[in-house]
Parts: sequence; structure tokens; C-alpha cells
Amino acid sequence: MDETDVELAFDEQELLPAVAQDASSGAVLMLAYVTEEAVERTRETGLAHYYSRSRDELWQKGGSSGHVQEVEEIRVDCDGDALLYVVEQTGGACHTGYESCFYRTIEGDVVGEQVFDPDDVYDE
Amino acid sequence: MDETDVELAFDEQELLPAVAQDASSGAVLMLAYVTEEAVERTRETGLAHYYSRSRDELWQKGGSSGHVQEVEEIRVDCDGDALLYVVEQTGGACHTGYESCFYRTIEGDVVGEQVFDPDDVYDE
Repeated sequence: MDETDVELAFDEQELLPAVAQDASSGAVLMLAYVTEEAVERTRETGLAHYYSRSRDELWQKGGSSGHVQEVEEIRVDCDGDALLYVVEQTGGACHTGYESCFYRTIEGDVVGEQVFDPDDVYDE
Repeated sequence: MDETDVELAFDEQELLPAVAQDASSGAVLMLAYVTEEAVERTRETGLAHYYSRSRDELWQKGGSSGHVQEVEEIRVDCDGDALLYVVEQTGGACHTGYESCFYRTIEGDVVGEQVFDPDDVYDE
């Protein structure tokens, strides 16, 4: 951390939500969580890292699928308790094959664009 | 709730994170939390409602400032554990006067646009 860095207000689980937005299309791609280590790894490598609450581990987006996110900028919100990763997304962000994880309306209508076939990317 | 609605996976505090995105500019405006009641109120009124964890109450965005969010669409992510409100933002989303709460980079550089003077909007 640099001394000019914005102070981050991690929660009691030492997590913050991070939103990824596509730098080109402006699409909101996904929401995941980060630890301080995930943020540091993201800054060091330029590739988006998150923390999986279910698997209890640091992960690099695209580590298995190749659908990495090159991070152009990390933004912090006014309260320091949420991050925005502005990224160049390779392939699609969602494991279902859609560009964005937010590919459905709450009414269940599919409004997103499928950009890859998950069967081609993930092993069973 | 309609029977075709996507099932939402509220967490153990009965909350979900909700991201608001400006329908016109594509800007990611803010991240806040919602309860089931906040989502219902949002759908009933067409105006974004959230739940304040610090004040422990439902709130309508812009209730005091007039900077309401008319919700064009509510999207749900693949896991059902995050929402995206696509909105028309009146004024600015951030209480600091910026269009977006994400107006700073993690390095502390201001990259957002100030769209109103908070002294004109909020009482002391």
C-alpha cells in the first residue's frame, strides 16, 4: 500500500464486495468479494483476483477458464467499503457463457449475450 | 413475487448487495444492500430502495436529497446473490456531490465528475 492510497473499510470477515465493469462495453460483469491480499495480488499482477467465500481461498479470475480480467483501474467508493474493477474481459465473465453474470432480469427474462459455450471451456 | 421470478439467495443477515448503474451513461453509481422488502418496495414504486445496515432501516434513495433513482430494470446475477439496478439517476448518486460514489481510484486520484454541491442539498 502506498501512503496516498484510500483507506479500505474491510468488514468483520475482512472482505469487501468488488464489482467488475467492462472498460469497453461498460457492462457490469460480476460482483465478488476481495480480501486485502486479493487487492494486493490484483495490483501486483494487473489481473483481477477475488476471494471465494465458499471455497475459502484467493482465486484469479480466469485461472481455469482463461477468461482473465486485465484491470485498468481500481476505484473505491465514498465509504471505502466497495471496489470497482474496471477491466478488459477476455471471453465472458460468467461461467454460464454470458458476457455478464447479470444476464437475467428479476422476472427471469434473459437479456444478456452469450459469448462462449461453457462446455468448450470447463471440464465436467 | 411472481412464480417466474428468479429465486434470490439472501445471506444470513437476509441481505443482498445491489449495484446501481446509470442507464444512460453506463456509470456504476453505487453499491448498497437490499432486503426482500427493499426489493419489493423498489418494484412497487419504480424507485430504488435499499436497506441501511448502520441505521437498520429501509430507505428510499433520494428520500431526503431528491436524488431519486428511477429503476428501469432489476437484474439478478447467475448465483442469485447480487442485484443490478439499472436506473435513471436524478442529480448525482453520491452524497459528496459526485455522479458516482466510485469517484476515486485506489491511489486517491479523483476521476469522477462532481454534479452538484452537497451544501445546496443536505442540511447540516
